[in-house]
Amino acid sequence: MKPPHSYSIADLAKHISAKIIGNDKIIITHVAPIQRAKTGDLTFLMGNAYRRYLSDTKASAVILSQADADACAVTALVVKNPEYAFARIAHLFNTAKKPIIGIHPTAVIAKTAHIDSSASIGAHCVIGENVAIGANTILHAGVIISDDVKIGSDCQLYSNITLYHQVTLGNRVILHSGVVIGSDGFGLAHNEGVWEKIPQLGSVSIADDVEIGANTCVDRGALENTMIETGVKIDNLVQIAHNVVIGEHSVIAGCTAIAGSTTIGRHCMIGGSTNIGGHLTICDGTIFTGGAMVTKSIKEPGIYSSGTGLFPNKVWRNVVAKLRRSVITDH
Amino acid sequence: MKPPHSYSIADLAKHISAKIIGNDKIIITHVAPIQRAKTGDLTFLMGNAYRRYLSDTKASAVILSQADADACAVTALVVKNPEYAFARIAHLFNTAKKPIIGIHPTAVIAKTAHIDSSASIGAHCVIGENVAIGANTILHAGVIISDDVKIGSDCQLYSNITLYHQVTLGNRVILHSGVVIGSDGFGLAHNEGVWEKIPQLGSVSIADDVEIGANTCVDRGALENTMIETGVKIDNLVQIAHNVVIGEHSVIAGCTAIAGSTTIGRHCMIGGSTNIGGHLTICDGTIFTGGAMVTKSIKEPGIYSSGTGLFPNKVWRNVVAKLRRSVITDH
Amino acid sequence: MKPPHSYSIADLAKHISAKIIGNDKIIITHVAPIQRAKTGDLTFLMGNAYRRYLSDTKASAVILSQADADACAVTALVVKNPEYAFARIAHLFNTAKKPIIGIHPTAVIAKTAHIDSSASIGAHCVIGENVAIGANTILHAGVIISDDVKIGSDCQLYSNITLYHQVTLGNRVILHSGVVIGSDGFGLAHNEGVWEKIPQLGSVSIADDVEIGANTCVDRGALENTMIETGVKIDNLVQIAHNVVIGEHSVIAGCTAIAGSTTIGRHCMIGGSTNIGGHLTICDGTIFTGGAMVTKSIKEPGIYSSGTGLFPNKVWRNVVAKLRRSVITDH
Repeated sequence: MKPPHSYSIADLAKHISAKIIGNDKIIITHVAPIQRAKTGDLTFLMGNAYRRYLSDTKASAVILSQADADACAVTALVVKNPEYAFARIAHLFNTAKKPIIGIHPTAVIAKTAHIDSSASIGAHCVIGENVAIGANTILHAGVIISDDVKIGSDCQLYSNITLYHQVTLGNRVILHSGVVIGSDGFGLAHNEGVWEKIPQLGSVSIADDVEIGANTCVDRGALENTMIETGVKIDNLVQIAHNVVIGEHSVIAGCTAIAGSTTIGRHCMIGGSTNIGGHLTICDGTIFTGGAMVTKSIKEPGIYSSGTGLFPNKVWRNVVAKLRRSVITDH
Repeated sequence: MKPPHSYSIADLAKHISAKIIGNDKIIITHVAPIQRAKTGDLTFLMGNAYRRYLSDTKASAVILSQADADACAVTALVVKNPEYAFARIAHLFNTAKKPIIGIHPTAVIAKTAHIDSSASIGAHCVIGENVAIGANTILHAGVIISDDVKIGSDCQLYSNITLYHQVTLGNRVILHSGVVIGSDGFGLAHNEGVWEKIPQLGSVSIADDVEIGANTCVDRGALENTMIETGVKIDNLVQIAHNVVIGEHSVIAGCTAIAGSTTIGRHCMIGGSTNIGGHLTICDGTIFTGGAMVTKSIKEPGIYSSGTGLFPNKVWRNVVAKLRRSVITDH
Repeated sequence: MKPPHSYSIADLAKHISAKIIGNDKIIITHVAPIQRAKTGDLTFLMGNAYRRYLSDTKASAVILSQADADACAVTALVVKNPEYAFARIAHLFNTAKKPIIGIHPTAVIAKTAHIDSSASIGAHCVIGENVAIGANTILHAGVIISDDVKIGSDCQLYSNITLYHQVTLGNRVILHSGVVIGSDGFGLAHNEGVWEKIPQLGSVSIADDVEIGANTCVDRGALENTMIETGVKIDNLVQIAHNVVIGEHSVIAGCTAIAGSTTIGRHCMIGGSTNIGGHLTICDGTIFTGGAMVTKSIKEPGIYSSGTGLFPNKVWRNVVAKLRRSVITDH
């Protein structure tokens, strides 16, 4: 079978401004991890963990930094940032098909919606009143967009996404399947033993270049908008509660929960399954390792962690018993 | 642009049985948080955190309690429970449009389904055999209801929800997008190294006035019904396993997991990312703070917590090392 | 009302190769838990927790092991593995209706898709180019299958599922509503303060007899496939990141997160809300209790645990203070 893609190493080097060391005539047909690459494959090396594979990789070429070039037995593409260079190369080898431009006949589109003629609207999509969808934006099948939503250009919304009314997305936003944006925040007023709903009158603003993973939820604000700023990347199954602000270029790994009215700074990195309380302010450049439990605002950038670590169960029982005893002897 | 809503302060005061102190002639066009409110806005004050904004708020009026009335520089609406009063006011300012009554022509409805003529069934909904849907209930686009489901009146089901067969919802139930009710519980029998599925023959009963957040899952019971009782409020991305019972007026914050056959009492408050084991009984009035790890039944109401708290990563490494050493010296 | 199912105890005994002790003429119409069973019901006993109900159960018959037979006041069906025997019986009492074979007229099917004539494709399903769907496979309403997906025979996909391009499912795979398979892994390259997307060029392979719970996500691999091996059972709201491998017959409870490139062995049992870091290897037969925080590879099978346990909040505050002090005195 003919490979779907085929590039000369010279063209690839040009695409990422790399210096070629070795054979500049080879043809690349696939990308692969260094330890399993074979002839025709391009791979990359970054960090220490995989360096041991460099001397006997079967790849035809490796993207790497100058420091690793000498140890490379095959053709090398030398760049400053191999991972980023590889990211740019990988776009060329993507075999996902682009949907057809235009509106599928089974889509239900409100008359007052404005959809750019270069957009693609998949089967069974539903688009509400006064919605605007920009150039080259793709809605895969089954996306449901409520009234007054504004979506920029070059966005990609995968199947079975729901956007509630008045949500706005910038340009180049990617939302994965099952994402829900603009659902009501968890706002309740206690009245004589019963919880009464507080209507959520804000919405959600998502800026340019944001990517949000599958089945993640971003609630609408109580009175103002929940805000996801430029370049933020959010993984799967993350909960962003009402009135939260996520600062530019922060990244949030899977299963993290951020409670209401908390502000996350810019360039933060939040590990998986982190639990961040409400009404906190987390400063720029903060890093939480996975499973962190954040109950106070953070004023100094740095790495923060929680948890006991992992123990064999019998030992763990002793740890818990010791913790219990330590506070009993205190009284 | 003309504001979508406009009320006299006198009418609003009447709506919440408030006493007006100040100008009873003003017109309110929006609601806003106290620190950013401006002329024409109504806001509210509750608790200590925001009291410092009261003396120089730009709001036209503030809902507050008698104790705060003297410190208010603008018109005050005095009530016993400002948050609840505000919740009732906020309904008046909701700009979400009500869907049109009737069944969208693209919906697929089984002939044996009975849908009240005042209900609203959105585009691409699918409704199975013997389903009953009550008065004024709204199904937004893309809701899928399997056979023999019963839904009461005045419910609101947002887009892309799935209800499996035989699920029942009471009246005034709100389900947010991506909710799954009645999926199979995680019932497995071990047989010679292989896990065999135990068919889940129960269903799910959801009582009146329950609200369930986006992408939350409630599994059907193994033999009997999983039960969510009156007035329970559940946030996003919560897992309710088979045979669980959640008692009346309990609230559960996001990303919490409740394992199978556990019974949660009435008027409990469960913080985000709490992990509750299976086959436990949690008494009425229990409060778990976020991230609690519940491995035993709770017999006395109170506040319960888990976790090490948050440390700078270097310090945390010492904490873990200390815990490790403490049990080694024990042996 | 006539019960939907009715079997003679002799037929049921034959079905599970059980020895009947007692009345072999009775008719069973329902299955029920031992403590609430009544005349006409079959129940089962396994483990110690429910043995106290055996002497006065109102069930017509009980499936149990030889050791419990003497204590049984009603008809007994004696087997080696009562839970597994009950699982097989429960299939007979399942009242879920089978969908009609064939393709619903509202489904949108690419011309190049090949769907077996015994398959069932529900309303508003969307099926992409070159998709293959095997014999007896059921897609409930609203399932969206992207291009080049291969699905085996006897699978069941519930409503509102999304399968991205090139995903493969084996035979007898069950996916619950809201499942997303093949969404992009969380691959990012850092470049001058900005996170650039690394295209995810692998896909997801799911082997035979896998079941995946509602709203669980399995990301596609960066370069190779994320792999779920034979017989794996995954609960609701679980996050499986890119390049993860889950070994045969492992089970994973709800709200667990497994970070990228981690390999889980065979016959592992992972409790709910477990958080497993990236690039780890977990050996066959490992058990993590709920809420475990796994930051290192596991080389010896066993039970592993994390966490402080649960404390009354005031005591917990002392625990945290003690932990804090213990490291301060260290410096």
